[in-house]
Amino acid sequence: MIINGEHYTSVSFVPSRGIRGNLIRIIDQRFLPFQVVFKTLSSLDEVVTAISEMQVRGAPLIGITAAFGLVFAIDECRSEDFESWIDKSVDKILQARPTASNTEYCLRKILDRIREVPDVLDKHEIALETALELMEEDKSICRAIGENGFEIIEELYNRKAASQGKDSKERSVVNILTHCNAGWLACVDYGTVTSIIYNAREKGIDLHVWVDETRPKNQGARLTVWELTQNGVSNTLITDNAGGHLMQKGLVDLVLVGCDRVTRDGDAANKIGTYLKALAAYDNDIPFYVALPSSTIDWTLDDGVKNIPIENRDDREVKYVEGRCEKEIKSVLITEKNATVFNPGFDVTPARYITGFITERGICKANRKEISRLFPEYTSESENN
Amino acid sequence: MIINGEHYTSVSFVPSRGIRGNLIRIIDQRFLPFQVVFKTLSSLDEVVTAISEMQVRGAPLIGITAAFGLVFAIDECRSEDFESWIDKSVDKILQARPTASNTEYCLRKILDRIREVPDVLDKHEIALETALELMEEDKSICRAIGENGFEIIEELYNRKAASQGKDSKERSVVNILTHCNAGWLACVDYGTVTSIIYNAREKGIDLHVWVDETRPKNQGARLTVWELTQNGVSNTLITDNAGGHLMQKGLVDLVLVGCDRVTRDGDAANKIGTYLKALAAYDNDIPFYVALPSSTIDWTLDDGVKNIPIENRDDREVKYVEGRCEKEIKSVLITEKNATVFNPGFDVTPARYITGFITERGICKANRKEISRLFPEYTSESENN
Repeated sequence: MIINGEHYTSVSFVPSRGIRGNLIRIIDQRFLPFQVVFKTLSSLDEVVTAISEMQVRGAPLIGITAAFGLVFAIDECRSEDFESWIDKSVDKILQARPTASNTEYCLRKILDRIREVPDVLDKHEIALETALELMEEDKSICRAIGENGFEIIEELYNRKAASQGKDSKERSVVNILTHCNAGWLACVDYGTVTSIIYNAREKGIDLHVWVDETRPKNQGARLTVWELTQNGVSNTLITDNAGGHLMQKGLVDLVLVGCDRVTRDGDAANKIGTYLKALAAYDNDIPFYVALPSSTIDWTLDDGVKNIPIENRDDREVKYVEGRCEKEIKSVLITEKNATVFNPGFDVTPARYITGFITERGICKANRKEISRLFPEYTSESENN
Repeated sequence: MIINGEHYTSVSFVPSRGIRGNLIRIIDQRFLPFQVVFKTLSSLDEVVTAISEMQVRGAPLIGITAAFGLVFAIDECRSEDFESWIDKSVDKILQARPTASNTEYCLRKILDRIREVPDVLDKHEIALETALELMEEDKSICRAIGENGFEIIEELYNRKAASQGKDSKERSVVNILTHCNAGWLACVDYGTVTSIIYNAREKGIDLHVWVDETRPKNQGARLTVWELTQNGVSNTLITDNAGGHLMQKGLVDLVLVGCDRVTRDGDAANKIGTYLKALAAYDNDIPFYVALPSSTIDWTLDDGVKNIPIENRDDREVKYVEGRCEKEIKSVLITEKNATVFNPGFDVTPARYITGFITERGICKANRKEISRLFPEYTSESENN
């Protein structure tokens, strides 16, 4: 997608001339929107740090970055016991951010393919090919999500236009509320939620996006506002507290969010606060859709509220707010220095509050039967387990 | 209440030796929790500024400060046309923060009493007496709210203790979630929500309070954490996004909030975001109570979502976050400099999500019949209007 008029992706592969020494280039998202900082990663430890410090974030992008982390780990193996080295490396990566399901999907795809390969150099080559394939797959999945979500936007647009009447001189605008960043910055390109938005806009539909600031890390205020503005989409920043009021006042036509893990019964873990928006959408009869690549679905879990692991993050994220002050990025303390803090990173929206999922295969309702209809191959797999 | 071991009130009257030259002393709450700054106000304009800049905030405290503003205005009247001077002054005060209902209550009480008094000096004296009376009334109302709310906490405590069983060595703790600051800092003393908390604790009940930070002004992070800590109440700061997750996980026994205006049908306007917590409490079967002095009830309104005026505040409150950095209070920009912002200050929780109101007269359900039962005199008044 576009930064200052030029095309970029959130992560890209930089091949070396030899077999080893490959790099990936990321945008260090901690500096946005104030500075665009590119960074290269070339080792497992750098990847783990980039994920845990949220230099990269967003479930799909974490997954792809993690895949390259595993490629680096294979390259770094100096031990006789390859298996235990890889097990340790996989653990390190998964511990960096435990909620996202896509990471497991990406790592498993590589592990499955290299298992039967005897030679470590061959393993490395296959792992790298798989990571590159996953990166391309992510792009085409995001595009497909954008295409599949179009019908929802189009229907809302037509309904609004019809209710305004033929003679109205005002153009209809579809008002979408989103939480956190499910943009191209959370994926390789296009995004999940934003792919739908960019696609609908290209097809001539006027859109406006309400952006939740998304405390504590303010991904909405910092990333989504920047990304949408860079790509020419009209948007308004609001506090996380404001969405319910906007819905009561008829200012929201649709809630669109991404997610980090979905159970086979349709419960969805996403950035903390998503559940509150789902409740408000339900109370005000506003459709609430979750956009996701199928790698986000955890086929082993049923009850998300009980069983999806929720990461508790550092107190400092709540006590301090980071932003620009006098041309530098600084943090201000917003409470008592010794305040006690609890900082869960995600919450789970029960399936009953989700109107539907928008996936690369199409749209489905948030229940086991409908999800299985779209992804029969995974369903039978999980039932055999 | 207590600051560094000494007793203070949020506003106090400082009489002069002559008839004129009276002052009120406030705590300029913009500097909390980093500095305790006292300030004197002695004119209508200073009062209007103190209210609009949120040097004082919280519906009951705004009402009392406004009452003294009117006393100062009477004193400042140099015009021949007393009535139009007073009308203009009242308008100025009401415009400073339009959502709180208590301001109208306090000003009306003074206006009713001075209407038939011919002499301006007498009007001034009566107005001052009334303002002082309102200040004392606020204290006793807050104490009564604390007493009346006790039975709710006690019942929750006993139920928890019973479910833990006789042999449990752990003491039961009642976990209360609150939004914004409905503390003594929002009143003259005791507070509304906090009066219940302080009273229950004095009666030997162990409590813990989850404090929503309450963006955009962070009154929870800045005021409630400070006030509860100063008064020895165990508390944990959370983002506004976290409450739903805590409720899903069984970590909240009761939601207690204040409010700025309640309709006679029981809809309640409070700080933006309150409605989202009410929805989550309802979804998780957790009691949601609103603590209020009856001056908060607007007997002229039925449908709060439609008819309570909601103040839209400055964009800067959302775009910048204030806190301490390098021993100074500074603001950091958290988004694109040119971001578009919408910043409604309050939302309305429909009566159906409110378990009950805790008032100075007792507890009632959130519907017209029950509210009227507690306050029959106002009800007949509004029906005669």
